[in-house]
Amino acid sequence: MREYIEKAKVLIEALPYFRKFYGKTVVIKYGGSAMEDAEIRQTTAADIVLMKYVGMNPVVIHGGGKAISEIMEKMGKKPVFHKGMRVTDDETKDIVEMVLVGRLNKEVVTLINQAGGKAVGVSGKDGNLIRSSKYYPKGSPGVDMGFVGDVKEINPDLIRSLEQSGYIAVVAPIGVGENGETHNINADSVAGALAAALKAEKLVLLTDTPGILRAKGDEASLISTLRLSEVEQLVASGVIEGGMIPKVEACESALKAGVSKTHIIDGRIIHALLLEIFTDKGIGTQIIP
Amino acid sequence: MREYIEKAKVLIEALPYFRKFYGKTVVIKYGGSAMEDAEIRQTTAADIVLMKYVGMNPVVIHGGGKAISEIMEKMGKKPVFHKGMRVTDDETKDIVEMVLVGRLNKEVVTLINQAGGKAVGVSGKDGNLIRSSKYYPKGSPGVDMGFVGDVKEINPDLIRSLEQSGYIAVVAPIGVGENGETHNINADSVAGALAAALKAEKLVLLTDTPGILRAKGDEASLISTLRLSEVEQLVASGVIEGGMIPKVEACESALKAGVSKTHIIDGRIIHALLLEIFTDKGIGTQIIP
Amino acid sequence: MREYIEKAKVLIEALPYFRKFYGKTVVIKYGGSAMEDAEIRQTTAADIVLMKYVGMNPVVIHGGGKAISEIMEKMGKKPVFHKGMRVTDDETKDIVEMVLVGRLNKEVVTLINQAGGKAVGVSGKDGNLIRSSKYYPKGSPGVDMGFVGDVKEINPDLIRSLEQSGYIAVVAPIGVGENGETHNINADSVAGALAAALKAEKLVLLTDTPGILRAKGDEASLISTLRLSEVEQLVASGVIEGGMIPKVEACESALKAGVSKTHIIDGRIIHALLLEIFTDKGIGTQIIP
Amino acid sequence: MREYIEKAKVLIEALPYFRKFYGKTVVIKYGGSAMEDAEIRQTTAADIVLMKYVGMNPVVIHGGGKAISEIMEKMGKKPVFHKGMRVTDDETKDIVEMVLVGRLNKEVVTLINQAGGKAVGVSGKDGNLIRSSKYYPKGSPGVDMGFVGDVKEINPDLIRSLEQSGYIAVVAPIGVGENGETHNINADSVAGALAAALKAEKLVLLTDTPGILRAKGDEASLISTLRLSEVEQLVASGVIEGGMIPKVEACESALKAGVSKTHIIDGRIIHALLLEIFTDKGIGTQIIP
Amino acid sequence: MREYIEKAKVLIEALPYFRKFYGKTVVIKYGGSAMEDAEIRQTTAADIVLMKYVGMNPVVIHGGGKAISEIMEKMGKKPVFHKGMRVTDDETKDIVEMVLVGRLNKEVVTLINQAGGKAVGVSGKDGNLIRSSKYYPKGSPGVDMGFVGDVKEINPDLIRSLEQSGYIAVVAPIGVGENGETHNINADSVAGALAAALKAEKLVLLTDTPGILRAKGDEASLISTLRLSEVEQLVASGVIEGGMIPKVEACESALKAGVSKTHIIDGRIIHALLLEIFTDKGIGTQIIP
Amino acid sequence: MREYIEKAKVLIEALPYFRKFYGKTVVIKYGGSAMEDAEIRQTTAADIVLMKYVGMNPVVIHGGGKAISEIMEKMGKKPVFHKGMRVTDDETKDIVEMVLVGRLNKEVVTLINQAGGKAVGVSGKDGNLIRSSKYYPKGSPGVDMGFVGDVKEINPDLIRSLEQSGYIAVVAPIGVGENGETHNINADSVAGALAAALKAEKLVLLTDTPGILRAKGDEASLISTLRLSEVEQLVASGVIEGGMIPKVEACESALKAGVSKTHIIDGRIIHALLLEIFTDKGIGTQIIP
Repeated sequence: MREYIEKAKVLIEALPYFRKFYGKTVVIKYGGSAMEDAEIRQTTAADIVLMKYVGMNPVVIHGGGKAISEIMEKMGKKPVFHKGMRVTDDETKDIVEMVLVGRLNKEVVTLINQAGGKAVGVSGKDGNLIRSSKYYPKGSPGVDMGFVGDVKEINPDLIRSLEQSGYIAVVAPIGVGENGETHNINADSVAGALAAALKAEKLVLLTDTPGILRAKGDEASLISTLRLSEVEQLVASGVIEGGMIPKVEACESALKAGVSKTHIIDGRIIHALLLEIFTDKGIGTQIIP
Repeated sequence: MREYIEKAKVLIEALPYFRKFYGKTVVIKYGGSAMEDAEIRQTTAADIVLMKYVGMNPVVIHGGGKAISEIMEKMGKKPVFHKGMRVTDDETKDIVEMVLVGRLNKEVVTLINQAGGKAVGVSGKDGNLIRSSKYYPKGSPGVDMGFVGDVKEINPDLIRSLEQSGYIAVVAPIGVGENGETHNINADSVAGALAAALKAEKLVLLTDTPGILRAKGDEASLISTLRLSEVEQLVASGVIEGGMIPKVEACESALKAGVSKTHIIDGRIIHALLLEIFTDKGIGTQIIP
Repeated sequence: MREYIEKAKVLIEALPYFRKFYGKTVVIKYGGSAMEDAEIRQTTAADIVLMKYVGMNPVVIHGGGKAISEIMEKMGKKPVFHKGMRVTDDETKDIVEMVLVGRLNKEVVTLINQAGGKAVGVSGKDGNLIRSSKYYPKGSPGVDMGFVGDVKEINPDLIRSLEQSGYIAVVAPIGVGENGETHNINADSVAGALAAALKAEKLVLLTDTPGILRAKGDEASLISTLRLSEVEQLVASGVIEGGMIPKVEACESALKAGVSKTHIIDGRIIHALLLEIFTDKGIGTQIIP
Repeated sequence: MREYIEKAKVLIEALPYFRKFYGKTVVIKYGGSAMEDAEIRQTTAADIVLMKYVGMNPVVIHGGGKAISEIMEKMGKKPVFHKGMRVTDDETKDIVEMVLVGRLNKEVVTLINQAGGKAVGVSGKDGNLIRSSKYYPKGSPGVDMGFVGDVKEINPDLIRSLEQSGYIAVVAPIGVGENGETHNINADSVAGALAAALKAEKLVLLTDTPGILRAKGDEASLISTLRLSEVEQLVASGVIEGGMIPKVEACESALKAGVSKTHIIDGRIIHALLLEIFTDKGIGTQIIP
Repeated sequence: MREYIEKAKVLIEALPYFRKFYGKTVVIKYGGSAMEDAEIRQTTAADIVLMKYVGMNPVVIHGGGKAISEIMEKMGKKPVFHKGMRVTDDETKDIVEMVLVGRLNKEVVTLINQAGGKAVGVSGKDGNLIRSSKYYPKGSPGVDMGFVGDVKEINPDLIRSLEQSGYIAVVAPIGVGENGETHNINADSVAGALAAALKAEKLVLLTDTPGILRAKGDEASLISTLRLSEVEQLVASGVIEGGMIPKVEACESALKAGVSKTHIIDGRIIHALLLEIFTDKGIGTQIIP
Repeated sequence: MREYIEKAKVLIEALPYFRKFYGKTVVIKYGGSAMEDAEIRQTTAADIVLMKYVGMNPVVIHGGGKAISEIMEKMGKKPVFHKGMRVTDDETKDIVEMVLVGRLNKEVVTLINQAGGKAVGVSGKDGNLIRSSKYYPKGSPGVDMGFVGDVKEINPDLIRSLEQSGYIAVVAPIGVGENGETHNINADSVAGALAAALKAEKLVLLTDTPGILRAKGDEASLISTLRLSEVEQLVASGVIEGGMIPKVEACESALKAGVSKTHIIDGRIIHALLLEIFTDKGIGTQIIP
């Protein structure tokens, strides 16, 4: 009995957070270990369902990563990258879309449904959710990235409509160009743009790092809170670099559109989402206006 | 961190229960220690707010008890009882109504509001919620109980309307007679009638006992589950007696109207409500069809 | 037959007024004789029900007065007043709340229900309708009024929600402080604040005077219409004084929030409400912007 | 003042009737003096507006009568009747429609609008409200009545839709045949059919007689209440004859479809409608199931 | 089969237009041959029904013309005109209303219903749709036009309400004056005012001319597109004259109220409406802002 | 001009069909040439968008076919079939899902969106739309088909919700098993089950044959109409065989659930859908109850 009472107390401790986020939209970029580790996949799905049950509107964007390269290799196709981004020729584009939309997206949908939620997976083509244009990498004028795209416009009607019918939307980062062509878009950028378009309360990026570290590799140097105004200098000084740059940019664009808080957190920690949302201290790095 | 992860796990363990009771109405008879002990009052209020946040529709009925006799004595009026029920003359009736509706009801409302809910207190007069008729005690033909009443008809429109606007209804057990007169009604009976009228999923009676005991005073003899068909024999044999009788009758009338389960639980246990609803085993005695 | 035709004509004469006030909110401060005289209580309740049936939204605020002192005396407690306001110590506060909410409020509810309406009584604690703070009397720095409160904020959601479900809200002038404490508030002030928050068409204060008299005691000196700009001078010159001051202040705050007209009328006249609303001339004193 | 109080009392006396008929549909056949006498036209319009304001749904069907013959004569066309019904050749049909729909209907609409209502006039062609077929007079096999019609089917959608938008529907008794042809239909029959299709509470026929008289011309022999089962015998015995027959048939078909009460009343009496609806005794003859 | 495939292709060619005008309101002035020629009447009705089925909201205003004079002559009344407008004395007014509302309006309603639509005919009196004032012809100070009116105010609620219930509104150009009097109004003016009040996408005037011709009688000189700014000069130079002036004024007032495009087209061409709306080139003269 | 008038006539000829199918659901199995031929893909998409614009609710189910085998071969995996059905081992299952959901489904979505519609693609996992169980081929007890599934239950909520928001649902024939596993299901069976669950008006199967031929290969022997009762005999006699069997079974199950008509038509014909729906004769074979 004692044990159950302790558990009840925990539920009650969460009440002020339920109240605070009631009816609010939280956009979650889901990737890395949170997508690949068998246990964390399940706990993350449960976290999302819990958020829905206590009155929040979670919207999930997932990435692709390893699975894409694996399939490419099975099909005898060698992955090529330019500054960390996948060069996406015609064949690669088809594989990217098949893996993201046909496999990973439905895996996330099924995980959430198995955890007791009602998820619906969509790509940016569905209801013209994500209109995109060809991406030209800054500072690399001669490089053709193929079917890599930039978000041009988010049409959030479909997400709103699914939300109102009680569904959790799971979005694959595929955009649709002016002539119906497929674009492979960075999932962090999509997450930022969706948070902005939905006027979300929060944007949470699940990563495989503890957050932004002031000193590379030194977890003790984690920056808990960062103001938007401080970002530029940290990029200039190289503290923010590599794959962290698109994440920080996603946070920036969300904050500029009125999102209250953005978070880069460690998806390798079990229940990272709940820790971020339902504790005062949170985890990882938060970037605020 | 570890501690927080453990807490998150507890939230997730509750998910299947959130899902099971989503959108369901639970009628709670609130009385005894749960109303009088300073700590338990607050934890019970928090339990109710939690139920609302995770999608259930709790409806609260409170009793009166000690507070009424205290005020009567202050006003130089001696409480009189007949077989455990308060003989309610004209003056007593006014005091009963003032204490129940003007004091205890608003205390419960405020407790729930302070815990983060939105409660509205009503008496059976409001919106003609509880229509009643004069009560004549069975087996005591000569006794006039005064303004004691029996539930004649529940009009649940007001409760439904408050529910749909996000409020938690808190009901004082006062009925209104055909000519607008006040009736003092047993709170257990009101709870049973409300559960029946609202076609509730559950009726939970918070009491100051562990439940129904097969052997008086021996908590080890607690009956966990009772079928409706077994009740009559247990009353005949004296196992169910005294104040337990109206409670069991309330359960009976609720079950006959289609309520799925009814529970007589120990309100002295902290978070008794959550233990009942969010654990498989539950606590106290459940009476089922 | 002739008699019935005359009656029909009267109904028809009222048509232009039904039309004028269709869908409009009228806040009514109900007190004095209108609450105490057996006949006038009933006719006033009927007036309110009629207003509802012909498409208006009446909202009723009642006071307390004599009944509170009577109960206090029964409980051996001596009423104390400071400049016409009841000094409200802890025990007094409990009595005030019990009498207002548990007795008078439900009496008004029952009167309206008996007249064919659907009334619901609420206190300022229900749905946090009236948030209040401790009142400090101006010009009496050393005086502690105890649990007397000032309206800090009205949250009209509950009133709107009851209105839309066809109920007539009856409000007891009890506020809730920041920590859930009870505040005894002047009913006129509550009426003014509610009219303001509901953007009512009219505020009508039922009193035991013919209205504002230019010469004390001389009913022939009744001021029919007063502009807001004239009020200050009349207070300065003592024409408006005593219990009339909170009434005039309630009118002022309502008018400043956009209420079209406010009325101080003689509740001792039978059907005073209908006379005010359904005749061109009206009765009593109207204060206009 | 006294006079106004008396008037207020009259309003209050009407309350129980407002309550009784709240939300109920009353179909009114408007014809004879009620349409032709300058004063009664206006009072009847006001009666209808009052009914709408106090929450009833009046639906008006008007006849034609004298105006049609007047216009026909102006156009050099001689009216021809067979057993009291107008033989309607092609030219007559056009005149009937023009006078009913283009003149009388809009007169009623304007009277109601001037009295403060919002009326919309429709013919049976609008929204295919009244589908009709050619009428063949029983017992006169060789007679061709031309464009006289029988109601075949009422499609009440348009009436419901106008009602819900706050309008009072005013219906001209013109039907539309299978090929779009115009049919001149007896207004009493249309009223009966509409009451049946709308599942009205009441059907009220305004006539130029006191009601059904047991002895021709003797007003003292007025039958106040008639059961449906008694009608046949009264027709057989000639007590019900001539123009009263279609009226009684309209009542019959309405009653058989579930209308609660039907009334044949004297439209020459000022405020006849209110007298019927808002007094216990009513006027004229009521036919009940 | 080949023939059917060609037909299917035609349907598909229309898709971009269906899309472009989806949910848009188009006000159509219906008169001249489109109302009088047996074949064109039917095809125009079908065009309107098609517009409704593919998601547009057509609103029809019809004129009167020849039919009014015919009936007047039958009634021995000589039509009198002043500068092309009918001088409307009391008797003429009644005839105008009967013919417009009782005959022509219902003919249009029936045509549309026979073509598969759901039409409802209204005059400006219904729901006080068109409030009007007496018309005084400019430049003719001594002339009394009788019951000719000017649109004073359009109350589009009734049109909106019919639209939302799936009906096509058909409006007769009759206005209602302050005292309920009938006004005969130019149908083009009513069409312009309705387009303005409904914030229509388009106003289309069906006429018996090819459009505005630069050289009188020379169809080759048709002006396809006219800017609002060019109108004044064309009136001054006499290119726009006679009956074309009220049409151009109707277009002007619609454009000034925000209507996107207005069209004066040749109603003698079969399917003129569809040609205008569902081809890029359109027909007749369009006047744009 | 003449040419345009002819086109307008064609639109008008379609009106009776628009009217007949207004608001009706039509389930379309999309496969074979209609999916593979560049021109027919586009015209079919346009047909579907047209159906939506004229008020029908098309729901599309697509198959897979050639594309799956192509990708399998690229991945060095040999397709294996048993009685025409793909044996679906674990690896094959992943490829099937990726190709159906990630590629073909989004191609159909994009085609429809490019044609001016708003399509949303879903798999049976989304919103648990298609719950399935492992398929055991009748008559082949020892054969393990792997992840081939049978429809167990359709939950049409998601389709309804998309429909009400104006979207066209495009469904990939993937089911979800009890433990979240993927099932590859015959698209014809899914189409039949969806038509049944949605209580569709029609089920249309686009095939690469003219319909059911009485004599193999002889198009002149096409059976235009088949009653459900005749099917069994035609299967027994071998007239219906091979891939036609699941199609006929889909029709059967739809008809048994109340679908009015089912059609097996030749998707190689351009605009086959419109020919079927918008001509009286239709094309292919219709199976009716």
